Amino acid sequence: MEQHWDVAVIGAGPAGLEAAVTLKIRNKSVVVFGSDRVSEKVGKAHEIRNYLGLPNIPGAELAARFLDHARIMGAEFRQEKITAVYAMPDSFVLQTGNNEMVEAGALILATGVSFGKPYPGEEQFLGRGVSYCATCDAPLYKGGKVCVIGASPKEEAEAAFLAEVAAEVTYIPLYRGEVCLPESVRIVRDVLVSIEGGFKAGRLVLKEQTLETDAVFILRDSISPAQLVPGLAVENGHIAVDRRMATNLPGCFACGDITGTPYQYIKAAGEGNVAALSAAAWLDEKKRK
Amino acid sequence: MEQHWDVAVIGAGPAGLEAAVTLKIRNKSVVVFGSDRVSEKVGKAHEIRNYLGLPNIPGAELAARFLDHARIMGAEFRQEKITAVYAMPDSFVLQTGNNEMVEAGALILATGVSFGKPYPGEEQFLGRGVSYCATCDAPLYKGGKVCVIGASPKEEAEAAFLAEVAAEVTYIPLYRGEVCLPESVRIVRDVLVSIEGGFKAGRLVLKEQTLETDAVFILRDSISPAQLVPGLAVENGHIAVDRRMATNLPGCFACGDITGTPYQYIKAAGEGNVAALSAAAWLDEKKRK
Repeated sequence: MEQHWDVAVIGAGPAGLEAAVTLKIRNKSVVVFGSDRVSEKVGKAHEIRNYLGLPNIPGAELAARFLDHARIMGAEFRQEKITAVYAMPDSFVLQTGNNEMVEAGALILATGVSFGKPYPGEEQFLGRGVSYCATCDAPLYKGGKVCVIGASPKEEAEAAFLAEVAAEVTYIPLYRGEVCLPESVRIVRDVLVSIEGGFKAGRLVLKEQTLETDAVFILRDSISPAQLVPGLAVENGHIAVDRRMATNLPGCFACGDITGTPYQYIKAAGEGNVAALSAAAWLDEKKRK
Repeated sequence: MEQHWDVAVIGAGPAGLEAAVTLKIRNKSVVVFGSDRVSEKVGKAHEIRNYLGLPNIPGAELAARFLDHARIMGAEFRQEKITAVYAMPDSFVLQTGNNEMVEAGALILATGVSFGKPYPGEEQFLGRGVSYCATCDAPLYKGGKVCVIGASPKEEAEAAFLAEVAAEVTYIPLYRGEVCLPESVRIVRDVLVSIEGGFKAGRLVLKEQTLETDAVFILRDSISPAQLVPGLAVENGHIAVDRRMATNLPGCFACGDITGTPYQYIKAAGEGNVAALSAAAWLDEKKRK
């Protein structure tokens, strides 16, 4: 094997970076696979209001602070994509996009949620009218008009919360069946074509009509982490973990959005801490045997 | 009932304050019971190295930032101790030390771990040679002499980690039975009398001998949250919660150290966020019925 590390972390968002910081404190060698520009999602967020200790912080500033912290602690970053992971009897072997093989004693998955193929305009207006998080961004549209794309009935609570804040909420369910929402919410059953606008998103184009809007909330979760690590147990589209952030595979831990909602930075960072300490304990236990 | 809130949070450490911040964003009325000086433990910590985004921050500064954030968001603080909580069919009734009754639709427990009766000198030297957390404070004693009081065999991993950093580690088990530690760790079976020193802790006084030391790590967990809320399920001395931070009592959530190790600020804050969103969802669900 070309290179060996105590722990490999896949993903450089809040969960992966907190895991790396804590592992360095525990004297473990650690490599983080992921862009050192942190997750684009953090950087593009307007303002984060509930990362305790850093009130009302712009996403770009928070992303920079996360990265600085990991760098100060000496975490090593690798930009290559990981294309496959093999669970060996006593370690994990990671195959990189360059076809290199990297070995690690323990593995932490922190890749976030991958949203599948985006809608036309979705990426362009992300952070400028397109949002994935009602809790985070609702206050920006106080008294405004918003559209909510809901992938499943559980997103209805998010739409109901938006209705408490925005003046007009239009809900477009991506599913059949009854929708249960406050009367003030307009329900439109149609097919999403694209998001349009100028500097900011301004129109939601559907097959049958076009809606003027200040914001488009796209609320869904789709992910297939099992594709990355064969044999990994998945539950409701997320990696199944226990309270120690352990997956069903010994030595493999997961943290952040990939383990399920809520998709929140502080939740992701907290889980990264737990995953790191669990991985450290697991390696120490193995050594003592 | 004299006063009603959507949510009552008991405890004003990182878990309770993050819960309050997130609940305010979700438009819930919230009251936090606990000292507005935040948990004394945070304030007394030397330096916290793994609260992502705020590297190497003194405990007092982090505590001030936490509190400022909660105040900015409009969280309301009450100083009274809660002496009892009653789970009613549709709400929780909290009895304060002044014998007032306060009602809340949902309850979040974030009281931290109570360490029982402290040793003589323990409180005096807390943050000045006495520590509860090897992960947090080990780097301060690089190359130094430390004593570790271990309440149970699971603390041995902490002592082994300290042996990687400090030059001399003495381990005093508070239990019978085999101790499994690296050879470099000296094991002393004796009875702890007191911690002594000048400005900082310098001596650990035992019944049979006195040890010179740079630091005393006291590693234990004892708590009886069930005393506060009758009927609450407890597991290994901590409140039993699921991944949503729900306890066995509908509408009652818990977060932070009280739910179990690791005792880390970022883990506590992350759990506070999840507990808040679960409590908000629970209240919304109740309203829709």
